Amino acid sequence: MQVLVAVKLDQQMKQHFESSYPGITFHFSSSKEETEELIKEAEILVTGGRGADEASLQKADKLKWIMVISAGVDNLPLDVMAEKGIMLTNANGIHRIQMAEYAISSILAVARNERAFLKKQEEHVWDKNLMIDEITAKKLVVVGAGAIGQEVARLGKAFRMHTIGVSRSGSPKDHFDEVYKQKDIETVLPHADYLISILPSTKETKYFYKESHFDLMPKHAVFLNMGRGDAVATDVLLDALNKEKIKAAVLDVFEEEPLPGDHPFWDHERVVLTPHMAGKSPHYNERAMDIFEKNLAVYTDEAADKQYINKIDLDRGY
Amino acid sequence: MQVLVAVKLDQQMKQHFESSYPGITFHFSSSKEETEELIKEAEILVTGGRGADEASLQKADKLKWIMVISAGVDNLPLDVMAEKGIMLTNANGIHRIQMAEYAISSILAVARNERAFLKKQEEHVWDKNLMIDEITAKKLVVVGAGAIGQEVARLGKAFRMHTIGVSRSGSPKDHFDEVYKQKDIETVLPHADYLISILPSTKETKYFYKESHFDLMPKHAVFLNMGRGDAVATDVLLDALNKEKIKAAVLDVFEEEPLPGDHPFWDHERVVLTPHMAGKSPHYNERAMDIFEKNLAVYTDEAADKQYINKIDLDRGY
Repeated sequence: MQVLVAVKLDQQMKQHFESSYPGITFHFSSSKEETEELIKEAEILVTGGRGADEASLQKADKLKWIMVISAGVDNLPLDVMAEKGIMLTNANGIHRIQMAEYAISSILAVARNERAFLKKQEEHVWDKNLMIDEITAKKLVVVGAGAIGQEVARLGKAFRMHTIGVSRSGSPKDHFDEVYKQKDIETVLPHADYLISILPSTKETKYFYKESHFDLMPKHAVFLNMGRGDAVATDVLLDALNKEKIKAAVLDVFEEEPLPGDHPFWDHERVVLTPHMAGKSPHYNERAMDIFEKNLAVYTDEAADKQYINKIDLDRGY
Repeated sequence: MQVLVAVKLDQQMKQHFESSYPGITFHFSSSKEETEELIKEAEILVTGGRGADEASLQKADKLKWIMVISAGVDNLPLDVMAEKGIMLTNANGIHRIQMAEYAISSILAVARNERAFLKKQEEHVWDKNLMIDEITAKKLVVVGAGAIGQEVARLGKAFRMHTIGVSRSGSPKDHFDEVYKQKDIETVLPHADYLISILPSTKETKYFYKESHFDLMPKHAVFLNMGRGDAVATDVLLDALNKEKIKAAVLDVFEEEPLPGDHPFWDHERVVLTPHMAGKSPHYNERAMDIFEKNLAVYTDEAADKQYINKIDLDRGY
């Protein structure tokens, strides 16, 4: 059996795979061309996306399973996979730690006015009059109360925040003081000192946040989006900031990525932006490969009832 | 009885005091001159420092109690107070929340390379290759394991950090996985991914950190000082940074404050500095006055066994 790994692994991990599975041949591909050649013979593909495009899949006659090391699968040709009977698993769950750190770190930075303090340092100015705020005891709304949202809420509780979750079902979840249904978001918005959006990109979540929603938020609200950029139309968000409906936005995702170089967000004094990196971690590959190995044990096991981690329903898309 | 409040309070708090204590006359002083005049008749002084200098105290013949709304009392003439039989209480304990937020916020900012991301934003550059690290699961050493240190450790545990305390006694404390004695700090230093110093300024803690200590720390260590600036000689710290014995320093306190405008720390790419503000909070005065009111109830009570909060031993200085 051939496994094609189109993900950059360090030498130690490569050796681990080569020595741990005597019945399996691992190919580690570092280029697009190599991947397109090796995909023809591979039964399993481990990838960040390369080799899983439609053209490659048409050549992949032996392929039975694709493990993508991302969480979103919205850019993959799920219909082709369904047609060819290829199983898809993802790395859902390994974004929890770094994304929760991103969220808490970012709201602390805004509350504590970190950018202004850094400016003062640049200017050699000792200014004790800069305002700061605390996140402690504030209200934290998390829209998308899954694994990542719960981790954000868990840390929020450590800061004694009041945590409010918003989810499809509205059913109680760990670390949330309250959980509301998505359709009831208007009840929640007036209480949002901090709103963390972790909505994925689906038909229902496109342009989820409307102009009227920003009208309902407190003027001191901080809106953080680390889910998908199309959860809010860029112009709606920009307008909310410019009309001071909210205090600030922390944005890791955008309708158009990379964000165009002349976009007003870059210089906006109340926007902190990062290049879609909230899910990044130095431990990313090791955590993703850990899921892969658990699923590989299931895959090679003869038992009939196969319980894979993170198997994607190709019709639903998650 | 006259109480002189030489601290800026908002109108609501002033009214609260005036209406809640019919037997007491409150004077709210906003200038040095007014304070020096009113101190002559005051029995109680509430202050950030004004009115508690030696010259003022010599005129304060009716003064029985000074409540300082700071934690450090190292700048006050304790000997004069002892001589005149004046009781001193401080606001110890109200720095916990904001200082723990400062510490966690700052180490997150360094780990996650926030300054570099802000630079990229300024330059309109979408750069997904910037390195980030996580604080999760790292080792956190807290030197000074009192109320503030324990709060830092509590938050550290929420980030699944391994927490190591260093205190005079070395006895176990809440939220610390291990606690060592100050004299055993060399055992601890090689494990310090992050070192948070909250040492006060006393005879024993002056120049506590020696050159050899920085030799023992890992090269990736981040040293954060939010205690007192004289815990480390400026040149020793600068040398440790320049010789890359440690990765970075976060400094809120300095041997000389304000930090001179031409000091190399300002432009040092591995120094993040703030102007002695880690203890600052928008809720500072309300928390300090809460301690004052509790002690005022004790003060006006006729009972013999008076248990004050934060009464300073004028000989020991804490």
